[in-house]
Amino acid sequence: MRLATVRIGGGTRAARVEGERLVLLDAPDVVSLLASRRWQEEAATGGSADGPALEEADLAPVVRPARVVCVGLNYRSHILETGRELPEYPTLFAKFPDTLLGPRDDLVLPAASERVDWEAELGVVVGRTLRRAGVAEAEAAIAGYTAVNDVSMRDWQRRTLQWFQGKNFEATTPVGPVLATPDEVGQATDLKLRCTVDGEVVQEASTADLLFGPAEILAYVSTFMTLHPGDLVATGTPGGVGAARTPPVFLRPGQVVEVSLEGIGSVVNRCVAEAS
Amino acid sequence: MRLATVRIGGGTRAARVEGERLVLLDAPDVVSLLASRRWQEEAATGGSADGPALEEADLAPVVRPARVVCVGLNYRSHILETGRELPEYPTLFAKFPDTLLGPRDDLVLPAASERVDWEAELGVVVGRTLRRAGVAEAEAAIAGYTAVNDVSMRDWQRRTLQWFQGKNFEATTPVGPVLATPDEVGQATDLKLRCTVDGEVVQEASTADLLFGPAEILAYVSTFMTLHPGDLVATGTPGGVGAARTPPVFLRPGQVVEVSLEGIGSVVNRCVAEAS
Repeated sequence: MRLATVRIGGGTRAARVEGERLVLLDAPDVVSLLASRRWQEEAATGGSADGPALEEADLAPVVRPARVVCVGLNYRSHILETGRELPEYPTLFAKFPDTLLGPRDDLVLPAASERVDWEAELGVVVGRTLRRAGVAEAEAAIAGYTAVNDVSMRDWQRRTLQWFQGKNFEATTPVGPVLATPDEVGQATDLKLRCTVDGEVVQEASTADLLFGPAEILAYVSTFMTLHPGDLVATGTPGGVGAARTPPVFLRPGQVVEVSLEGIGSVVNRCVAEAS
Repeated sequence: MRLATVRIGGGTRAARVEGERLVLLDAPDVVSLLASRRWQEEAATGGSADGPALEEADLAPVVRPARVVCVGLNYRSHILETGRELPEYPTLFAKFPDTLLGPRDDLVLPAASERVDWEAELGVVVGRTLRRAGVAEAEAAIAGYTAVNDVSMRDWQRRTLQWFQGKNFEATTPVGPVLATPDEVGQATDLKLRCTVDGEVVQEASTADLLFGPAEILAYVSTFMTLHPGDLVATGTPGGVGAARTPPVFLRPGQVVEVSLEGIGSVVNRCVAEAS
């Protein structure tokens, strides 16, 4: 099953993808849908009127939860190529929900930053409340997977030791286009993840190279906080970011940045300069 | 004016402090109250029935907003005593709202941590939406001030370079007891901040020693994200934390940790072991 959140009639609606069309569901968005205990049944069988075609729909961030937890340094090959040892614990940081952006929205490059960079990531969406869960319980609680571009303002990220400020610019993190449930993509253990800028491949990896897998991360986070339905975990990015290139490369107005995740689809965002 | 959020009748209510009593207002909590454009008038004149005495009330966290932004390394004397240079930019990190704890609640020491430490802080509560604000606009948008104990799990905080996981254990950050508006405490430019453990003073400083002041921090944060009414900024802690002592000292079950802020009051929390 594939789910989306579509902007329609001045608000949003959760939707199920059927073929090339969206079937509008009786929930304002995918987070609200997931809050129902019977969300799988409601999502699979609910809805009647035909919604717009998926390709033409005005898609909102597929989820916009209160908690977005991000993982850093989580692709083995990328960690080893930087000369670091494999870490014992996942590196975690937070995003507030206003950072999220629709999967086809313009990406406004903040005027305050000169170093806007891409980060292709596998996103994991929680489907059931988790607290002090083991890995098996966490795996069973995964609602599905989505694509995330954890766009990062490198100059702000590196102003201090804490990455927060470079990772929390409003409306800079595209997420979507859909949430694909495990019956569609398994447990995302070997999906191809790719980032292109104007069609040129800048990142390419398999989620098989993740050091900490989705369920392991959810279980770890649930040690100290409750994860709720709809919460999003962005699992980290592989090598190939612009800041690590020689010379460094950053996004410019007019470019199109695309993060695609096998079996799920792409977030495709045109970069535009911020109006001054 | 002093405002509180009190637990009553299975829910919460915003309240105004009048003498030794609380006057219950027509809002479920202080964040909701602040969302009204006319909150100052409503808070000053609203309410009719007498609430409980302030001393006996079951107080909730005075605010529990969607965004809690914390500042690290912000007291000049503490930075200089660690041998660092004064930073050019504030170090920022995030807390999710579930971290917050009532000002008189038991502080459950997480079983997963062996190094639970205190951090006395001045909290700043936003009273008006802020985006790309200058310092003067930010200062005018401050609803008031409160006391925060940014209790930190040092072992988790230091597992990786990002502090998030040591700062986001559920229900570990007492905040309150009241929000005091600027007509009560000015712009908090010289308030005495103190932390005691079982009555012994472990931290003592003046907010005059803050490197980045409240309005400056709000203006800075508003460069990249919108601050909304009720949002909380914890402005950092002075020297004297347990982890920096020789030998290090951490909180133990049975101890009482108190953070007091001049003109505002105290958060006083008894430490209890987590049930296994």
